[in-house]
Amino acid sequence: MFAIAITLLIIEIGVPHVGEHGSLLDELVHLWPSYLAYVISFLVIGVVWANHHNRFRLISRSDQVFLVINILTLMCVAFIPFPTALLSEYIRDEAHRTTAVAVYSGTLAMNAVFFTLLWLYAATNYRLIDRSVDPSLLRAMTRRYVLGMVLYILAFVLSFLSPAASLTLIVILALLFILPELDSTSSVRRSAGG
Amino acid sequence: MFAIAITLLIIEIGVPHVGEHGSLLDELVHLWPSYLAYVISFLVIGVVWANHHNRFRLISRSDQVFLVINILTLMCVAFIPFPTALLSEYIRDEAHRTTAVAVYSGTLAMNAVFFTLLWLYAATNYRLIDRSVDPSLLRAMTRRYVLGMVLYILAFVLSFLSPAASLTLIVILALLFILPELDSTSSVRRSAGG
Amino acid sequence: MFAIAITLLIIEIGVPHVGEHGSLLDELVHLWPSYLAYVISFLVIGVVWANHHNRFRLISRSDQVFLVINILTLMCVAFIPFPTALLSEYIRDEAHRTTAVAVYSGTLAMNAVFFTLLWLYAATNYRLIDRSVDPSLLRAMTRRYVLGMVLYILAFVLSFLSPAASLTLIVILALLFILPELDSTSSVRRSAGG
Amino acid sequence: MFAIAITLLIIEIGVPHVGEHGSLLDELVHLWPSYLAYVISFLVIGVVWANHHNRFRLISRSDQVFLVINILTLMCVAFIPFPTALLSEYIRDEAHRTTAVAVYSGTLAMNAVFFTLLWLYAATNYRLIDRSVDPSLLRAMTRRYVLGMVLYILAFVLSFLSPAASLTLIVILALLFILPELDSTSSVRRSAGG
Repeated sequence: MFAIAITLLIIEIGVPHVGEHGSLLDELVHLWPSYLAYVISFLVIGVVWANHHNRFRLISRSDQVFLVINILTLMCVAFIPFPTALLSEYIRDEAHRTTAVAVYSGTLAMNAVFFTLLWLYAATNYRLIDRSVDPSLLRAMTRRYVLGMVLYILAFVLSFLSPAASLTLIVILALLFILPELDSTSSVRRSAGG
Repeated sequence: MFAIAITLLIIEIGVPHVGEHGSLLDELVHLWPSYLAYVISFLVIGVVWANHHNRFRLISRSDQVFLVINILTLMCVAFIPFPTALLSEYIRDEAHRTTAVAVYSGTLAMNAVFFTLLWLYAATNYRLIDRSVDPSLLRAMTRRYVLGMVLYILAFVLSFLSPAASLTLIVILALLFILPELDSTSSVRRSAGG
Repeated sequence: MFAIAITLLIIEIGVPHVGEHGSLLDELVHLWPSYLAYVISFLVIGVVWANHHNRFRLISRSDQVFLVINILTLMCVAFIPFPTALLSEYIRDEAHRTTAVAVYSGTLAMNAVFFTLLWLYAATNYRLIDRSVDPSLLRAMTRRYVLGMVLYILAFVLSFLSPAASLTLIVILALLFILPELDSTSSVRRSAGG
Repeated sequence: MFAIAITLLIIEIGVPHVGEHGSLLDELVHLWPSYLAYVISFLVIGVVWANHHNRFRLISRSDQVFLVINILTLMCVAFIPFPTALLSEYIRDEAHRTTAVAVYSGTLAMNAVFFTLLWLYAATNYRLIDRSVDPSLLRAMTRRYVLGMVLYILAFVLSFLSPAASLTLIVILALLFILPELDSTSSVRRSAGG
């Protein structure tokens, strides 16, 4: 489903139409907000996907409540192409930029909330996780989820003060959430080997 | 295929265009029927998917008739994005609301009919199901399928009297069909363990 | 990929727009060619998918030539949504009906040609098929592929004389190609058991 | 994800609208750049997919850096439908043809760069590859990746001199990159068997 949501992003970028004496290059350059929105959303979904994939291997059971939260989480992920298109359309437009960025960062914050809920539900008291997993690893992951959620909510709040700062924070978050995963991955290995 | 149908739902929501003195926020709020339709369809397909996945693990064989019913069932599932878009477009329009909700609930009723047929074909006399499965579990599932079908057909009939009541019933059905599954899942475990 | 092509078909059906004193029901009924085209293409792709799936389990190896024919075959399958949309648009239009049906049936004939080539390449002299498979089963399947190809080409030729007859033949072919598969499937079982 | 990107290509070809005294056939023939772009992109993505699939079976581990390069590579692949639509729209238009072909060939060159990076990262010092793989096989593959990258960059440069020559080179490259794979595949078998 991540694969589909991520691939659909490109459909939202329409081919530009050039006027009689216009230049296609100018029109293509003029589309920069679409490329920016594509890259940001692709990074965000891609990183969420990779992390999700890594961490959910730890989850060894499932139950009906988990399934419900999972459907709601996927509903949020599948929604991302819409605010992405909104961002492309209105980021250059001073009157509507704040609204577009608020909806975009709000959607990402909502995603972070649901992923955190999903993790907390699974990890609390090892509800859906094997007892052999190191408790310090679970605590580290819970910290990461909660921290990520708080920072995405911050990006949402920030969007009302400065849309540019909000988007910058979102890009930094996507990049940050790739890198420190290194630690937790090696912890997994250590815990698996120890 | 469920994953694709569910992800395509978002494509039907177009980015709104704001007039000279308009507000993007107003336009976005004005789109509430699209979000509502998105959420309902996502819930319905998501729950059908989860249930389908759970129950069809019991089916251990396949034959040509089952394949044909399966293709027809998938044809109904893949059709859902169209009445969803219809619902988004016409739910605010008093003159056409009844038609839109009737087509929407009618499509869901059709889906319920085909899923019930698929189940009945597989489960009758253990045609495609392993003999080791508890007969009381099969009877419980058959009851759920038939009950669901009757209620979705009721939602279709109701749409001509009150579109709002019909949609409410559909949302309740989606939520109900997650919860009682708890019982049957535990029965599976019990029957597997006993 | 079949799953994606088959699910994309619904996107081609746009939500109708109702004039001031129009009726949504009339507009929806007016869209019947779109539903017809959806159902025919879904059946055709669905049946091709099911058959493909069944028969290609017999193919135990792969090589570069097979890969190239496979890419070309998938290119034909993924093309089907375009003539389907064309058919929906022009089937009511007497001036253009013949062209639309010819392109549609021509695309299906092309698909049949490539699937036959794929099979012949794999099956000739057991090139990519396990020696344990019954030769009479291979001959039966080759007959079915060649017969199907000839009949789809006939549907293409027929489209110039009578578009309605061509579409009827296509629907009959889709239905026929589900049913007799029963025989060959049971032969597979017999050959596997014997 | 390749499957999705490749299937989405067809969505970009819209059904033509015929004027009062026009001919649908003429309109369809007039769309030849769309078919050409569809075929070229399908071939390119299809061949990349097949090669990727073959070679990445050699990669037995993964790490965070590899994951990041992988997300960026998929971002490039998922972008291809956009320049494909651009090419369809502007290849007949002398004023804009060069820009369209430059963007198209530039995107493919970017893809080649990322796939080469991905491979080099994995293969250098057997970072993510099993030690049992023949070093001469790795060197042969590295040569192929680097050569491919250089030729795609050449196609990009060529697009400014002659768009037609650039497209011709791209088609030849797609075809070439199927055929010589025969050698390396057989080397895999030899190295596996020896």
